[in-house]
Amino acid sequence: MRYSPLLAELIQALQCLPGVGAKSAQRMAFHLLERDREGGQRLAGSLAGALARIGHCRLCRNFTEQELCPVCASEQRDEAQLCVVETPADVAAIEQSTHYGGRYFVLMGRLSPLDGIGPGELGLDLLDQRLASGTVQELILATNPTLEGEATSHYIGELAGRYEVRVMRLAQGVPLGGELEYLDSGTLAHAFSQRREL
Amino acid sequence: MRYSPLLAELIQALQCLPGVGAKSAQRMAFHLLERDREGGQRLAGSLAGALARIGHCRLCRNFTEQELCPVCASEQRDEAQLCVVETPADVAAIEQSTHYGGRYFVLMGRLSPLDGIGPGELGLDLLDQRLASGTVQELILATNPTLEGEATSHYIGELAGRYEVRVMRLAQGVPLGGELEYLDSGTLAHAFSQRREL
Repeated sequence: MRYSPLLAELIQALQCLPGVGAKSAQRMAFHLLERDREGGQRLAGSLAGALARIGHCRLCRNFTEQELCPVCASEQRDEAQLCVVETPADVAAIEQSTHYGGRYFVLMGRLSPLDGIGPGELGLDLLDQRLASGTVQELILATNPTLEGEATSHYIGELAGRYEVRVMRLAQGVPLGGELEYLDSGTLAHAFSQRREL
Repeated sequence: MRYSPLLAELIQALQCLPGVGAKSAQRMAFHLLERDREGGQRLAGSLAGALARIGHCRLCRNFTEQELCPVCASEQRDEAQLCVVETPADVAAIEQSTHYGGRYFVLMGRLSPLDGIGPGELGLDLLDQRLASGTVQELILATNPTLEGEATSHYIGELAGRYEVRVMRLAQGVPLGGELEYLDSGTLAHAFSQRREL
């Protein structure tokens, strides 16, 4: 009795979005119907189009509707540097925060044998081919500093050992602007033991 | 360089949802593309269908894709009781929390002259016709206990004064489960002055 069928269906469908429960979904549905039908229509069209056409870049596995993503297609990016990340969000974060001018390789996950994610799922054969081609001189492992991210980095480091390539890992230590007092003890212990001369 | 055009468009379009900024929109887009393409397609279809077909109930102005909403179409709901609320979300809340068996009238807003929302925008002519027809015996004013909601209730109360109908307002006082210590002073003062015999 609470909603008409189409409205109930829309509220249900909105809950496929991460972080959206029944209450937010209801609020979103009412907002779109009452105040932003145009935005809603644009969203419906854009979503259908994106899902139908966006796949993975042939070279780096990032999301794109073309054969190559903008970074791989650009001739201004240095082919000698290759940065390995877990997700497309990591590419966005690095592009936004750094002046990195090389290429990327997006694993679309991390090694996680319990979830059935092995080297094949991460496209490591593709990465191996890329390294074998000899264009890459510096391989930057920018997986997350989590257990699984570290294991993934380690695995890829071993793989890269067979080629002539410098393998780098992101620096670890205390984050900028943090306070030592509130830092987790693992990070603090690592930063302390890896202290550098000023 | 950060996203392919279609992906950038999707992330932009998702920001029409209330409470969704650039970061959540990116997370939603990646989630749908990576892990829930089926849910995303269902959402796109459902959204397009809902926006194209959902309008307002001819009698109570609630959202529905039919001529009458489920409540107005039901013969089991008492026509003698009419509950006036501001939004469809209020109908959902009352249906969920109470055993109310009457009908509703949804204002789709509240009187707010500064925003150009007057009696016409709230469909008060429709409400007037309904009262004039003589079927309504009890009119329950369930607008929000805000300044604008109170003003709207007052206005509708005046309107209903011309007909033979009992006009009721939701009880006001201390909310269940609250602690007096943390109650706002307006609510506490009202509840104190309106105290009832046990």
